[in-house]
Amino acid sequence: MKNKHVYSFSDGDGHNKKLLGGKGANLCEMTQIGINVPPGFVITTEACLDYLEKNELPKTLMASIRDEIGNLEAATKKTFGKGPDPLLVSVRSGSALSMPGMMDTILNLGLNDETLAGLIEQTGDERFAYDAYRRFIQLFGKVALGIGDEHFDEHFEEVKQQAGVKADVALDASHLKEISERFLAVVNRETGEDFPQDVMMQLQLAVEAVFRSWMGKRAVDYRREFHITPDMANGTAVNICTMVFGNMGDDCATGVGFTRNPGTGDNEMFGEYLTNAQGEDVVAGIRTPKPLQQMETEMPEQFAQLVELRNKLESHYQEVQDYEFTVEKGTLYCLQTRNGKMNAVAAVKTSVEMFAEKLITREQALLRIDPELLEQLLHPSLDPESAVEPIALGLPASPGAAAGKCVFDADLAEKLGNTGENVILVREETRPEDIHGFFAAEGILTSRGGKTSHAAVVARGMGKPCVAGAEGIVVDVGLRLAHVGEHIIHEGDVITLDGGTGMVYLGAIPTIPAHFSEELKTLLAWADETADLKVMANADTPDAAKIASEYGAMGIGLCRTERMFNASDRLPIVIDMILANNKEDRKAALDRLLPIQRADFIELFTVMSPNPVTVRLLDPPMHEFLPTEHDLLEQIETLRLYRNVVRGRQTALDTFSTPPELPKPFSELSEELVNDALIKKERMLKKVRELQEVNPMLGHRGVRLGIAYPEIYAMQIEAILEATVECAKKGLSVRPEIMVPQVITAQELAHVKRTVEELTSQLEKGFGKELRFKFGTMIETVRACTRATHLAKNVEFFSFGTNDLTQAAFSFSREDAENKFLPMYNDYGILQDNPFEVLDIQGVGQLIEMAVTRGRGQRPDLKIGICGEQGGHPESIRFCHHVGLDYVSCSGPRVPIARLAAANAKLREAEFEAIRQ
Amino acid sequence: MKNKHVYSFSDGDGHNKKLLGGKGANLCEMTQIGINVPPGFVITTEACLDYLEKNELPKTLMASIRDEIGNLEAATKKTFGKGPDPLLVSVRSGSALSMPGMMDTILNLGLNDETLAGLIEQTGDERFAYDAYRRFIQLFGKVALGIGDEHFDEHFEEVKQQAGVKADVALDASHLKEISERFLAVVNRETGEDFPQDVMMQLQLAVEAVFRSWMGKRAVDYRREFHITPDMANGTAVNICTMVFGNMGDDCATGVGFTRNPGTGDNEMFGEYLTNAQGEDVVAGIRTPKPLQQMETEMPEQFAQLVELRNKLESHYQEVQDYEFTVEKGTLYCLQTRNGKMNAVAAVKTSVEMFAEKLITREQALLRIDPELLEQLLHPSLDPESAVEPIALGLPASPGAAAGKCVFDADLAEKLGNTGENVILVREETRPEDIHGFFAAEGILTSRGGKTSHAAVVARGMGKPCVAGAEGIVVDVGLRLAHVGEHIIHEGDVITLDGGTGMVYLGAIPTIPAHFSEELKTLLAWADETADLKVMANADTPDAAKIASEYGAMGIGLCRTERMFNASDRLPIVIDMILANNKEDRKAALDRLLPIQRADFIELFTVMSPNPVTVRLLDPPMHEFLPTEHDLLEQIETLRLYRNVVRGRQTALDTFSTPPELPKPFSELSEELVNDALIKKERMLKKVRELQEVNPMLGHRGVRLGIAYPEIYAMQIEAILEATVECAKKGLSVRPEIMVPQVITAQELAHVKRTVEELTSQLEKGFGKELRFKFGTMIETVRACTRATHLAKNVEFFSFGTNDLTQAAFSFSREDAENKFLPMYNDYGILQDNPFEVLDIQGVGQLIEMAVTRGRGQRPDLKIGICGEQGGHPESIRFCHHVGLDYVSCSGPRVPIARLAAANAKLREAEFEAIRQ
Repeated sequence: MKNKHVYSFSDGDGHNKKLLGGKGANLCEMTQIGINVPPGFVITTEACLDYLEKNELPKTLMASIRDEIGNLEAATKKTFGKGPDPLLVSVRSGSALSMPGMMDTILNLGLNDETLAGLIEQTGDERFAYDAYRRFIQLFGKVALGIGDEHFDEHFEEVKQQAGVKADVALDASHLKEISERFLAVVNRETGEDFPQDVMMQLQLAVEAVFRSWMGKRAVDYRREFHITPDMANGTAVNICTMVFGNMGDDCATGVGFTRNPGTGDNEMFGEYLTNAQGEDVVAGIRTPKPLQQMETEMPEQFAQLVELRNKLESHYQEVQDYEFTVEKGTLYCLQTRNGKMNAVAAVKTSVEMFAEKLITREQALLRIDPELLEQLLHPSLDPESAVEPIALGLPASPGAAAGKCVFDADLAEKLGNTGENVILVREETRPEDIHGFFAAEGILTSRGGKTSHAAVVARGMGKPCVAGAEGIVVDVGLRLAHVGEHIIHEGDVITLDGGTGMVYLGAIPTIPAHFSEELKTLLAWADETADLKVMANADTPDAAKIASEYGAMGIGLCRTERMFNASDRLPIVIDMILANNKEDRKAALDRLLPIQRADFIELFTVMSPNPVTVRLLDPPMHEFLPTEHDLLEQIETLRLYRNVVRGRQTALDTFSTPPELPKPFSELSEELVNDALIKKERMLKKVRELQEVNPMLGHRGVRLGIAYPEIYAMQIEAILEATVECAKKGLSVRPEIMVPQVITAQELAHVKRTVEELTSQLEKGFGKELRFKFGTMIETVRACTRATHLAKNVEFFSFGTNDLTQAAFSFSREDAENKFLPMYNDYGILQDNPFEVLDIQGVGQLIEMAVTRGRGQRPDLKIGICGEQGGHPESIRFCHHVGLDYVSCSGPRVPIARLAAANAKLREAEFEAIRQ
Repeated sequence: MKNKHVYSFSDGDGHNKKLLGGKGANLCEMTQIGINVPPGFVITTEACLDYLEKNELPKTLMASIRDEIGNLEAATKKTFGKGPDPLLVSVRSGSALSMPGMMDTILNLGLNDETLAGLIEQTGDERFAYDAYRRFIQLFGKVALGIGDEHFDEHFEEVKQQAGVKADVALDASHLKEISERFLAVVNRETGEDFPQDVMMQLQLAVEAVFRSWMGKRAVDYRREFHITPDMANGTAVNICTMVFGNMGDDCATGVGFTRNPGTGDNEMFGEYLTNAQGEDVVAGIRTPKPLQQMETEMPEQFAQLVELRNKLESHYQEVQDYEFTVEKGTLYCLQTRNGKMNAVAAVKTSVEMFAEKLITREQALLRIDPELLEQLLHPSLDPESAVEPIALGLPASPGAAAGKCVFDADLAEKLGNTGENVILVREETRPEDIHGFFAAEGILTSRGGKTSHAAVVARGMGKPCVAGAEGIVVDVGLRLAHVGEHIIHEGDVITLDGGTGMVYLGAIPTIPAHFSEELKTLLAWADETADLKVMANADTPDAAKIASEYGAMGIGLCRTERMFNASDRLPIVIDMILANNKEDRKAALDRLLPIQRADFIELFTVMSPNPVTVRLLDPPMHEFLPTEHDLLEQIETLRLYRNVVRGRQTALDTFSTPPELPKPFSELSEELVNDALIKKERMLKKVRELQEVNPMLGHRGVRLGIAYPEIYAMQIEAILEATVECAKKGLSVRPEIMVPQVITAQELAHVKRTVEELTSQLEKGFGKELRFKFGTMIETVRACTRATHLAKNVEFFSFGTNDLTQAAFSFSREDAENKFLPMYNDYGILQDNPFEVLDIQGVGQLIEMAVTRGRGQRPDLKIGICGEQGGHPESIRFCHHVGLDYVSCSGPRVPIARLAAANAKLREAEFEAIRQ
């Protein structure tokens, strides 16, 4: 029947959570599979929406409710609103998704002066009845009549004072009776009317209140915060259920349970109960609840019922359940069930075990775990047992926990780290030249910058914990200390970071290591078998590649060669190359870099053999390798002072320490040495000014650089190909892929390809065999997407650089956007997500689809992947699966998450169109 | 017949220039319409390509040539390679497009020792014959045998010396005979073989040489430089034509003519001739040629033939022709014709007159003029008569010529300009705060910056001449002078600029005013009737709007409100607004701006009534209105010095002049005044640092600013709507359009629209009538293109901002690209054009098409235009027509060009697909 607004538990469709709410649907389902649920019925979400639209209940609703109440009376042999055995009901909200913020529960509805008398008579427990009554009046008064708690609490406290008791439990029946009477007077005074004695009117007002709570501020805020859209949950249902009491004697009890241990995943009874108690007593903590196991001896018959309930729930729902039960006079009732929330360990373990028990299929085992949950398992975490207070809070920039000695510069970090010390690199902010400090440190702490600052991005890439932008920390590098509120941290003091929460602690807090369990390995192996997408890692060094391999990466999807340039033994050579004023000088510097890069590639290829390694040719603009103008000006200033001193023209120099650009301690300096340093700095300054750009993100970088200075790309290509030859000579199977960044037209690719072909044929002559590698392009400019047909003629693979593509599609500079207006856009609901974290399907996604269609149209076997940061995000991976990419590449520690997400994307592909707009 | 390689003039298809070359096709055409052309034939471009591919002539080619030579012999009753009446021919190259750099002409081919004797006998003129012979040997030797001119010239000079003559004409037959003999010896020595006496061999070698010249360096360079692609011209044809001689006596002549005057367009005989002369004598300038009119008396019969020729050519080609003729013994032969190159004045005049004469249709009248040519007519230009040497050369940044007194800052420019002086603003580079100086100046000269520097863009927008980046000029504002090589220009000295050439002159050079003739007005009126696209102007002030109206703009397509903010009376208020630390202070500043903006809009709407005026809400990031950090630091430094002096702590201040931020001359300064100035500067510095962005182009600007500070947009919208009411009250019909910049999602538009709607309903209450205006969005982000369906729900018009869209599609920052790598990309042929000048159809164009299709899919009556700089470029306009835009908007002075281009786009729409890739 259309527009049926009320369903009995024995009648409602247990799968229709949208109509009946999650709670209601489960109550129906349980009733219908023979679980002992107290009789009741559900009022639909449609009735709610109808009410909210018209501001009155649907015409026939109250008549239907009355019919259902009649059914309850018949089933329970109680009467609603009348003694001697009055029917009391609970009224609960319940929408399709669990959602705090709506009205939750009114218990004992149906009590009035008359039924109260019946209840006293029936139970013989006056205190119980008045306690129920006063609670009902207050809750109903608050929820249905809008009377603030303070009006009731005032009287409650007064009576308690008069009675001279401190704890509520010490109040006796007469106190509770007085409270009930005072509460009835409060209602009269605040509303101008008596508390409704008509129980159908109570019911109607309660239903309307639940309906209205859907649009309450807290509920609306919650939905916005968690992006709950109307197609996910729209309106709330109301569940009306016969009251059962766990507090009517020692043959009564109440409890909550999980069908398995949600903390460990162990297959055991898990939960707590109290005899002769109400549900809220279990939570309130006044009496200590007992573990469910104890029921086996205390209430053996009921325990058997509970075991049966548990088994029935799990085998029916094929999922760990979180349930509530009450035993009323020896009979066990189940009041609610829902899927149990588990931590990652438990989720993984139960998946693998429930499959082994043939309770669920592999597909279900994969689908029931949110890939993001795995994050918990992949980093060390702070031992939750150690309840220490943090001294500072920053942004959780890269997950994991780490402890070590504070060090304020990268050089010292490297030095100490090399001696085996655990160090934490603490900086105001980090720059590319600090990279060697990152390698040496256990964790990174900065006082400036956001989640996308240099420190954050690099740390995430390395899988090292990072707390960024901890503004409470004031670093004084000169004095080698940091102020944090009243604390002073000296260099060498031990601190602990939690990159998952952003907390910083004094001293070494015990950590729990990452937990890459056998079950997780099993699960991820299933994921790999299921998924169409391969998962690669972004890794720039052999070390990072090793870690990525351990996480199950099937190759390197992005190796940023410029990261290799930043190592402290190389940066000076790179700077020489940049400062070169002619091709010869530049070539000389490159000749020194060549063997270094070649050695890197040999190591990298060896680690990843036989998997592919995709090497991106130099991408960032030259000025990124040089100090800033500001820093240079300061350094030059200092050097000039030095020169004056060395020349004897100035003396007061005791506040200065020898700057790093001088090769000797101050006492041994000659004027010549200082002059040389000065000349070099001044040359550098000139170059920095020459290279300055208005919008460096859109400037002279990527292939534009490769074309302007062909010898740079030639050196890199030579290093890659020679490394390939070296590895092949050792009998290793290696699969290098050369990737060109920032391409906008096929002509650029043709340009670089010529160099590749020349070097290949030269090397093949010496090697005597064909060199096997792939040549491909980043797709990270919008124009590359429109020209994909033509680009595909020149390459064997595409790799989407979705960071840059997102910047271009939005005309957002990532750093500027995230610091200036993106948070505002999210607050205002103008954008749902940060498009640099979650791939923007509606904009960037369309460009990707265009490029895929055009590229494959030209070259059907074109290999296509994505290597932007979104490549590790499950929703983005789902999109990548949908458009038919071959792989995603993400930072090493995200690889397991991506593997599971790739499998889930495959399993849920039929749903995809529904989630797109 | 397929692969026919040789066509007789009486046989070839006169329309097939690709196959026969332009020259050859015209020779065929003329022959076939009965014009007296000496008999000849054409060897096709296909034969050329075949030869270049295989490095040998097509198999049957020489046989076909021999057949055609036979036909010539029959027609002329001469014999090739034999006396007594030898057949001589000319051999000329000729591709589909006229193209200098290829071998041009060999005359007198067919001469050898035997035919020479015949020629002497036939003409009785030994000198003539030997002169022909020595010329032939040298030209053939050079072109066909690759012998450098110097080998011949050496002997020529020697003989001249021996003969004791200075001029070539003084050489007699015996000298020329000796020269011929020496030349034959040169050939023998240089090639090891005798000069070919076999005339068929001569012919073959000449044909091969012409073919090879297609791939000569000069020809290849020329094609690259002028973007001549194979589909435009591929290979050269060879024209073999019977020689006729204009130098066989007084009944002979030779000349060149235009069917109309190519300088004025007047319908008159135009050209020159010489009796008893060769073609090259007319050009050589040894004898002074006579105007064609003189033939009427000197050779009346031949003059009549010439008039007939001219009429026949024009009526057949329906275009002014540039032709060559020779009279041999009383008979007039036409040797060549092609369309005449005319200046703009002539092109326009002939178009209008030839239509009046019913020679051509309106469509032809429009199509025959390249819209860019009109540029000549729209700006004053330097009088070509005044042959003065420039003192400096910069970039031609904005066309037109201007003379005036040098002024080195905007304030003085304004002051002098207001007194009626003509001034030229001379700056190292300009900034937004110089805008009042632009208004006052006749022209702008900068020593730094490119064609897209601030100075260039603003000057173009105003239609004022600008020379930018004249690096030879060193401006010293402190000393109020500029060094230019050895010259010193003091402030107040008069200089002249030519913004069309980039030349700078000392003193006032006479200029010729712009020439907006009646004919041009007629032509443009036809264009408007023909075109589908409307042409609007980008104009930011009432003055600019007036100028745009005069150029025929049908409305304002883009009014950049920030330009209004830069005027010197407003900038301080804008800065107050930016420095405001709270909404109230900001609102107070905006309240002062509101009446100013409103007054601007009233004036603007009034000028343009009843045409639309599209106002773009504030777009640039805030920091653009503030000084740079560098400038502020300097100013603060100076102020601190001042404070020290005022406090009496320092004395040496004679080198400083009072900085502009101090309200009084130095002697009257108090410490308090200096302190106030300092505090203000320091606040500004703090703000500048706060607002700093990594990539300002992609930063906090446009609608993002409007959403962050809603009061700014509210003020602007209020000013627009109140101006509308004011105008309506005066009975003016005005059509304001409010445009939102930098939009990426419909939610942004919804945000701004709410403000528009609120203000509209407020104002309508007071006004009592409905306010009529349009609400629209810029489409200048890529995401806006993908989301066009959704954007169209919120707006009535789209306007493509192709500058930003191009930056986003290419990931090129315009300033960085044009200064750093774009020239290189053009040089290497990686990009054909500068995409900021010529719309990139293959990339940006596809985004535009996407947005048009999606936008109109949602809202079929959506008005769509383009307002980027490319909106004034003919090829871009052609694309805009093709994708169905409603209008283009460009800078005022480009409007006439755009109007003609819009008409041409309509007339040539059938060809469009062919030019796309």
